[in-house]
Amino acid sequence: MGTRMQIDLNCDMGEGFGPYRVAEDEELLGHITSANIACGFHAGDPRTMDTTVALAAARGVTIGAHVSYPDLVGFGRRHLQVSPHELITDVTFQIGALQAFCQRHGTKIGYIKAHGALYNDLAVDATLSKAMATAVLEYDPSLPVLTLAGSPSLDILGEAGVTTVSEGFADRAYTSGGRLVSRAIPGAVLTDPKVVAARGLALASHQPVNAIDGAPVTVDCESICIHSDSPGALTLAAALRATLEDARVLIASFR
Amino acid sequence: MGTRMQIDLNCDMGEGFGPYRVAEDEELLGHITSANIACGFHAGDPRTMDTTVALAAARGVTIGAHVSYPDLVGFGRRHLQVSPHELITDVTFQIGALQAFCQRHGTKIGYIKAHGALYNDLAVDATLSKAMATAVLEYDPSLPVLTLAGSPSLDILGEAGVTTVSEGFADRAYTSGGRLVSRAIPGAVLTDPKVVAARGLALASHQPVNAIDGAPVTVDCESICIHSDSPGALTLAAALRATLEDARVLIASFR
Amino acid sequence: MGTRMQIDLNCDMGEGFGPYRVAEDEELLGHITSANIACGFHAGDPRTMDTTVALAAARGVTIGAHVSYPDLVGFGRRHLQVSPHELITDVTFQIGALQAFCQRHGTKIGYIKAHGALYNDLAVDATLSKAMATAVLEYDPSLPVLTLAGSPSLDILGEAGVTTVSEGFADRAYTSGGRLVSRAIPGAVLTDPKVVAARGLALASHQPVNAIDGAPVTVDCESICIHSDSPGALTLAAALRATLEDARVLIASFR
Amino acid sequence: MGTRMQIDLNCDMGEGFGPYRVAEDEELLGHITSANIACGFHAGDPRTMDTTVALAAARGVTIGAHVSYPDLVGFGRRHLQVSPHELITDVTFQIGALQAFCQRHGTKIGYIKAHGALYNDLAVDATLSKAMATAVLEYDPSLPVLTLAGSPSLDILGEAGVTTVSEGFADRAYTSGGRLVSRAIPGAVLTDPKVVAARGLALASHQPVNAIDGAPVTVDCESICIHSDSPGALTLAAALRATLEDARVLIASFR
Repeated sequence: MGTRMQIDLNCDMGEGFGPYRVAEDEELLGHITSANIACGFHAGDPRTMDTTVALAAARGVTIGAHVSYPDLVGFGRRHLQVSPHELITDVTFQIGALQAFCQRHGTKIGYIKAHGALYNDLAVDATLSKAMATAVLEYDPSLPVLTLAGSPSLDILGEAGVTTVSEGFADRAYTSGGRLVSRAIPGAVLTDPKVVAARGLALASHQPVNAIDGAPVTVDCESICIHSDSPGALTLAAALRATLEDARVLIASFR
Repeated sequence: MGTRMQIDLNCDMGEGFGPYRVAEDEELLGHITSANIACGFHAGDPRTMDTTVALAAARGVTIGAHVSYPDLVGFGRRHLQVSPHELITDVTFQIGALQAFCQRHGTKIGYIKAHGALYNDLAVDATLSKAMATAVLEYDPSLPVLTLAGSPSLDILGEAGVTTVSEGFADRAYTSGGRLVSRAIPGAVLTDPKVVAARGLALASHQPVNAIDGAPVTVDCESICIHSDSPGALTLAAALRATLEDARVLIASFR
Repeated sequence: MGTRMQIDLNCDMGEGFGPYRVAEDEELLGHITSANIACGFHAGDPRTMDTTVALAAARGVTIGAHVSYPDLVGFGRRHLQVSPHELITDVTFQIGALQAFCQRHGTKIGYIKAHGALYNDLAVDATLSKAMATAVLEYDPSLPVLTLAGSPSLDILGEAGVTTVSEGFADRAYTSGGRLVSRAIPGAVLTDPKVVAARGLALASHQPVNAIDGAPVTVDCESICIHSDSPGALTLAAALRATLEDARVLIASFR
Repeated sequence: MGTRMQIDLNCDMGEGFGPYRVAEDEELLGHITSANIACGFHAGDPRTMDTTVALAAARGVTIGAHVSYPDLVGFGRRHLQVSPHELITDVTFQIGALQAFCQRHGTKIGYIKAHGALYNDLAVDATLSKAMATAVLEYDPSLPVLTLAGSPSLDILGEAGVTTVSEGFADRAYTSGGRLVSRAIPGAVLTDPKVVAARGLALASHQPVNAIDGAPVTVDCESICIHSDSPGALTLAAALRATLEDARVLIASFR
């Protein structure tokens, strides 16, 4: 008897555009519980959004709006200086566009997650986090926002009245302070499925993982992100899922 | 005693983009009952959409999604060859984006109207009309579509189960067959406020107007379009409204 | 002693966008003599254009501007209704953008080829062909245009004073009248490397190939197109090149 | 006898997009000697570029490429984090596109000027200035770059081997250190034609102007910028030109 551990697995989806495809979305959907679907600002277009929402809905995977700065050619990976009103309206636009496809397929958006540079900027910029809170609260105050475990944005969003869900990364190195190590630093990205799966289990079990300097660090998270566009994403996702299932961790959406 | 005549006045709104503005939206809102708001495909961007929706909501003007082919540089005035799935998904995306701003401002979309080349193509292309019907019915079957009086699309949309609202033009010449005269032909566009107002009254009263060849033609319509981007749009709108009010025609949204 | 047969092999290049890649451009460059490089309207962005031009220049492959309707999301595969001035200015813009990268890498544009829907429209639309002629002649009258063998556009461009190069397809079925069979018809696209190579040799040797109805048809062409985005493009290109070399056909740019 | 004072007057041009127009370009061309023409990244499209280049060429006004970050909806006024290669290739693309229209109209680009946020970033960011130098030198080392008087970018560009032209502003307040006062500060923008004209004459005559704190400040510049999109731009330009002509200052391009 006892409480069973529970974790959400989220993954970026629908990041193609026009004729382009970047990931094995359909296969990945078999391993995850939350799909962050691109809304046309860093990737995605109406056809890709429609198809991806339909696939996620059919699988019963919770759909999140993966909102971004408007930067298709830069894939949303570049910081753009935006005003609060620009962020609020860009986010509102993207949520609405995705919600329409959800409505068409008999489902609805379950959460919001920022993408790329916006995700990183939100984690440290209080003005942006407040603008994000405004966008969400004025659209639908029941929508949770998935954001970086240990980041100030968790507090800022929470104080504003937004429900937050903290996110950890099984395939990224952490500092001993609990921050993500920059991708520019060697060893920042982990690719061995066994290592990633073991770290994922530790995260899900609230156990410490080794920081990049070897010190133990505990990352308090309710969802683990699987990167869909890394080579071997599918293998990684399968390994992580199998490891979690073997350990009898309940894999379920936070919704 | 008797039934009072009723007519809706609709006008394109929010057709700026970024730093650009094209019409005196705020002033025009005082004269109309339905605002066709651009959704980012031929004009409009998240800021413009937000501002325009807020203005229309504050005035109690019914908001319509003014959906278009994706062609900002061509302002949606050029035919683009699209598949049914492309039209369905482009329309769904635009409705959703606008609906999010409506939700943010405590209102909702009241109808759909196609813009420019898509409007003209829908009026004659059964495949496109069917795709439009699918888009609307799968998003929200209660949403009416505003479309050209006398066009086959009224029947096609209606047979598919879509509520239709027929639209007439007080500032455009008609053929004796009840079709709009192409803008390429001299006399196709009327600019004298008195003439336009008188024709508007005739349309609202179900009386015939003179076709371009002088023959009387009756245009059966529930809404009259006022072009916001013509010079003197405001004068025209004011004259039309005054004439209708003098004749005790009820000016009200079809919703 | 006698004249050696000569043929140009052209291939679409640089059709990625932002983070997306669609073909093995670098490897394909080893097999071809002319690279049709996307100019940002159907694919390509400044980074992709820069990289692709650098690769082609390093290989000594002639660079062509692969101009398109402005339609990234549709990959330039959809007809768009454009005026002559729109086509002229869209083509001028694209040629100039690509030429700047050529200049940066010490080379220059060697020819123009239309992409996708524009390619197909030009082949049959005299007004568009005349506009294309104007664009090229007013920019640089020495630039040849690569266009469909047997199409009226060869004559229209030629009469306007443009140098034309006729193009055949080794991996597409022809009608007995020498037209391409629509991709919508089964058998329109050939994928067997041996068959494609044999047809390529026939085209290069001015020998007839079998039309889709079995009748012999001679396609008079100076360049053969290899599709870079078909699966097995590299195998096909290698097989075609080997077959041509075995037959001692000189593979060289038409420049 | 002595040397006659000489100054260049530059103005932003072609900042419309699609159906939008923002300034009285044709009238302004009568007052200036250098036209900074938008290249499609912050404003401008192939038609607007073609028309604007044709007008400038017909007037004998020197044409400059007004290059920007890629941000149509933000009109290039927002900082975007770009790598050196991104800036180099974005600038190359824009110069090339504009040069094609110059070639079509029998002229050529005479200089480069950055727009909006890129202009401001270049003035202070050495990495960006070096990337700009690379873009210009690898495209055409004879092209001068117009940049902010007193800014470090003048030195960085100059040391890299780029010809620079320093720019002053007759309608903007300066700090006593010779820097532009931020537009966010009251008094930063001057609108009285007499005041602006008098300051323009001082700039052209290498005489000090009053800084915002009243101290005299000398701004060493070879070109004065006239903002085309301020209300009263035409009146300001006419007043400035008349004042300079009355003082027998030679108004001529720096080319």
